[in-house]
Amino acid sequence: MCFIQSKENVFYLTNFYTDPHERLMGLFLFKNTEPFFVCPQMEARQAKEAGWNYQIVGYGDHENPWELIHQFLIKQKLTIQTLAIEKEVTSYSRVESLLQIVKPSQVVPVENILNEFRVIKDEKEVSILKQAAELADYGVQVGINALKDGVTEMEVLATIEYELKKKGIREMSFSTMVLFGEKSGQPHGNPGGKKLSEGDFVLFDLGVILDGYCSDITRTFVYKTYNEQQKRIYDTVLKAQLAALQSSKPGIRIGDLDSTARAIITDSGYGDYFPHRLGHGLGINVHEYPSMSHTNDELLKEGMVYTIEPGIYIPNIGGVRIEDDVLITNNGFETLTKFPKEFTIIK
Amino acid sequence: MCFIQSKENVFYLTNFYTDPHERLMGLFLFKNTEPFFVCPQMEARQAKEAGWNYQIVGYGDHENPWELIHQFLIKQKLTIQTLAIEKEVTSYSRVESLLQIVKPSQVVPVENILNEFRVIKDEKEVSILKQAAELADYGVQVGINALKDGVTEMEVLATIEYELKKKGIREMSFSTMVLFGEKSGQPHGNPGGKKLSEGDFVLFDLGVILDGYCSDITRTFVYKTYNEQQKRIYDTVLKAQLAALQSSKPGIRIGDLDSTARAIITDSGYGDYFPHRLGHGLGINVHEYPSMSHTNDELLKEGMVYTIEPGIYIPNIGGVRIEDDVLITNNGFETLTKFPKEFTIIK
Repeated sequence: MCFIQSKENVFYLTNFYTDPHERLMGLFLFKNTEPFFVCPQMEARQAKEAGWNYQIVGYGDHENPWELIHQFLIKQKLTIQTLAIEKEVTSYSRVESLLQIVKPSQVVPVENILNEFRVIKDEKEVSILKQAAELADYGVQVGINALKDGVTEMEVLATIEYELKKKGIREMSFSTMVLFGEKSGQPHGNPGGKKLSEGDFVLFDLGVILDGYCSDITRTFVYKTYNEQQKRIYDTVLKAQLAALQSSKPGIRIGDLDSTARAIITDSGYGDYFPHRLGHGLGINVHEYPSMSHTNDELLKEGMVYTIEPGIYIPNIGGVRIEDDVLITNNGFETLTKFPKEFTIIK
Repeated sequence: MCFIQSKENVFYLTNFYTDPHERLMGLFLFKNTEPFFVCPQMEARQAKEAGWNYQIVGYGDHENPWELIHQFLIKQKLTIQTLAIEKEVTSYSRVESLLQIVKPSQVVPVENILNEFRVIKDEKEVSILKQAAELADYGVQVGINALKDGVTEMEVLATIEYELKKKGIREMSFSTMVLFGEKSGQPHGNPGGKKLSEGDFVLFDLGVILDGYCSDITRTFVYKTYNEQQKRIYDTVLKAQLAALQSSKPGIRIGDLDSTARAIITDSGYGDYFPHRLGHGLGINVHEYPSMSHTNDELLKEGMVYTIEPGIYIPNIGGVRIEDDVLITNNGFETLTKFPKEFTIIK
């Protein structure tokens, strides 16, 4: 028996995209028996509309879904030897509840199998990812257009999301980042009331969820003027980003992309200021397989989509990150995000 | 030993508010030994700035944090008898990793204790929740102002979020809902390109996160004209909402609030169209303890904050939900959301 309960994998397997928050939603799969789907009763209709044609065990807020599942399983008269679950995202208490109902001889992870499917994007998925990336490009342009003396990070952020939501985007793929000046030197900084001034770095990191798939772009600019240190940092990051990009093709060891970019940054003396991995896989999750870490020994394959996003962050000075979404093609790569990357002074 | 890893409980206990996504972040607490905090190295500085004064085990993306934790624990020379974890939100694989390092004789949940603390809001928390509720009220007003013939759900949604983000709100507490006409009849409907017409129900469900705390309001209006059925549904929901509200004071059984509201809706013949519980606790999580379900035997206590949100949803016709955030005071209640609730025709 396999129990799948993350909204991402449920969507991948059923085409039903929803977030039931703390309520249980899950897919029970079997070798020789029809699957069934458990969800809050009030979502059952939407699950059917999304295309689910098998049984649904719906429950009200006053009911214990595990009891209903138990009854359903008893009726099926199955003997469960192996229980496969999403070990990385299923809570300990859900597994405890399940193990009170079924008594398998082993509990095994199902993520590796699902990741192997999900890591290779098919034509339809690539087409959605391209559109999502195009909207991320558009978000950067909206952000640039909103820049003026004294505007705050949050005002620019609000404008970006407004224009994207007007285009029908319900959710950003993560919390949009707009950072000015020295705040760009925090890899995970928080946008706030900081006002834009001449000579500031401006860092945008944003993405959208379109039809269940994510995009993720980062661009960094200088506002009106710049100094030589800023230019040097920018040129180093860009060189590293382009080098990792150019190395992208089927058969290349994934970890080597990080090493390629990291070597360039280290050789320029900024090695200590690049504290994160090169990037991450991109799809239904904004962070998914493969991890673009230098320790990853897997090889790039056609259909993989991931980010390349080296950065240099100097505390109290500022930082630069440049990020694209990349698709591995049959003999190389294609960047899905296409916003220009050359050093740009916003006037 | 206690291991706390949800961003909400980490924030509650450390004042450090961050979302490390799939990366490990966690607090290790002991009876007679100083605690330590594990986080990605690039977040260590912000944890200190938030006030964390004990040791930090920071790790890079290429490192296995569990190995670092293991080494750290070996140095402490502790014998762990009992391991307390957040069973409901800690993944099975994280518990597996931890159990390879420590060999407790029992694994117990820590949520019940933390929930008992968190369910009672102190003065500072109430003050933030009030401001968050005020911003939710403002969001409804912005939404009303944006209504006009032919405007789409997403356009109105974009305007609401734009105005809130300009006020410094970085995150909504959940995916904003704006539903027109028969779409309001889906308790978890998805806003889209539907255009507003005369005679439509307009349902807003929205909230903000302010300084780590959530608000959550629902209001339903009619646009320009209405029919008797709409008025009857609205009046029934409002009567149910007010009755549950008026029952709110210390010592009352929580489940009775749901029963009170549900009886009114059932007596009006709409019992089958109120498929969800009356509400949920509200705080750092938008859904937290207590659950306002009719099966909840706990008693209301001063300092509890929760939603009261009965609804009636008639497929293909439309629905009404009215929701307030409620604080239990020493002898009664105070609604934190204050937007008017009388039946209102938006002209």
